[in-house]
Amino acid sequence: MSDHIVKAYDEDLSQLKTMLAQMGGLVEQQLDDAIDALTRRDTALADRVIQNDERVDVLEHQIEEKAILTIAKRQPVARDLREIMVAIRVASDLERIGDLAKNTAKRTHAMSDQLPRKLMSGVTRMGRLAQVELKNILDAYSHSDAEMAMEVWRSDEELDALYNSIFRELLTYMMEDPRNISLCTHLLFGAKNMERIGDHATNIAENIHYLVHGKPLGEGRPKKDVTAAMRIDLEGSDDR
Amino acid sequence: MSDHIVKAYDEDLSQLKTMLAQMGGLVEQQLDDAIDALTRRDTALADRVIQNDERVDVLEHQIEEKAILTIAKRQPVARDLREIMVAIRVASDLERIGDLAKNTAKRTHAMSDQLPRKLMSGVTRMGRLAQVELKNILDAYSHSDAEMAMEVWRSDEELDALYNSIFRELLTYMMEDPRNISLCTHLLFGAKNMERIGDHATNIAENIHYLVHGKPLGEGRPKKDVTAAMRIDLEGSDDR
Repeated sequence: MSDHIVKAYDEDLSQLKTMLAQMGGLVEQQLDDAIDALTRRDTALADRVIQNDERVDVLEHQIEEKAILTIAKRQPVARDLREIMVAIRVASDLERIGDLAKNTAKRTHAMSDQLPRKLMSGVTRMGRLAQVELKNILDAYSHSDAEMAMEVWRSDEELDALYNSIFRELLTYMMEDPRNISLCTHLLFGAKNMERIGDHATNIAENIHYLVHGKPLGEGRPKKDVTAAMRIDLEGSDDR
Repeated sequence: MSDHIVKAYDEDLSQLKTMLAQMGGLVEQQLDDAIDALTRRDTALADRVIQNDERVDVLEHQIEEKAILTIAKRQPVARDLREIMVAIRVASDLERIGDLAKNTAKRTHAMSDQLPRKLMSGVTRMGRLAQVELKNILDAYSHSDAEMAMEVWRSDEELDALYNSIFRELLTYMMEDPRNISLCTHLLFGAKNMERIGDHATNIAENIHYLVHGKPLGEGRPKKDVTAAMRIDLEGSDDR
């Protein structure tokens, strides 16, 4: 690229990074509000999260458009091109995290004060872990720090393990008392949402690795959500 | 664009469309196999779906790379640029549909022959509807047919309605007999996967509209999954 193009490209890229930082901040806020809303059964806050999701969607589209136009105008190659491809992918993962926060907020309306505190606290704990993962991966992205990204990638195991234990716990509660079933089903979906937010954080981590090293991470981290194939002992579970 | 560039661009675009058709065909097969595996409790077929998902992921990455390189080399504008943006988005939705098929296949391992036939048949019916939606939206995309896309977009209501009724039905079964809980939980997640496949089909429909008309669809179709905020009567449900 000529000097002139390089400068114009740098400006485009810096604008793109700013837009992504804004989107990241908004999605962090949405997740924080969604977890608070569910935990405190705050339906007004839940409704705000649901409404704000449109802003996340708009930001994703703006980032994608800006990225594509930058490629068309500046014809970047190598790392410059990767920067923009990765920006598109990160925006897509952030949009999905926003969706999962919205879906979690929606379930606030189904909560009741009869819910055992212990059940909710497991899901809240997953939410807090997911928030830490999201925050760390956004930091790693803004500093193009592949090592920090790999730490986040590895830390996702913890969230998966927590999901597996909460899945068992919720099923056991449902079996003990059918009156818990409706609430526990919503908490199960809520917990699954947090587990998937972790997966999107690991996607972002893999993209940071690709950005910095120019090649994909290779072998995927073995999935630790084993609940999809889990049969729960029909007499109740003894592994709580 | 000069004549030379136009011809080169047309070739790139036609290659891109071929890759997307391949990816669409593979994802259709994955979904078909996942539903068959779950319905017939065929764990060998389920394992094949789980393994094949990597091929879907590889195709998505190849399409994305081809698209980005085409933009960088040919600098398309207007409809030509939209063609490529939409190709990237469609590949992303197809990849998500592949993931949902894989997750559904995984749940085959948790099924048992004690499952009431009626419960499974509801989820199978959702799967068949999702397949029709997927097939129709792939046809609409390959013909750039915005009207057909809008038909698919509208038809997704049916899948949402079916999900809502199956959600209630599964919860009722769980309440009637706690021994159903573990199985029904997996079917709930399976049903939710099919509902989300429908959402991805409507995403693709919106992108076909954007491709053809050059502007977004505007107001979103109101979401018909009302279960996220649903409280089921603790004494059992009377709306089966």
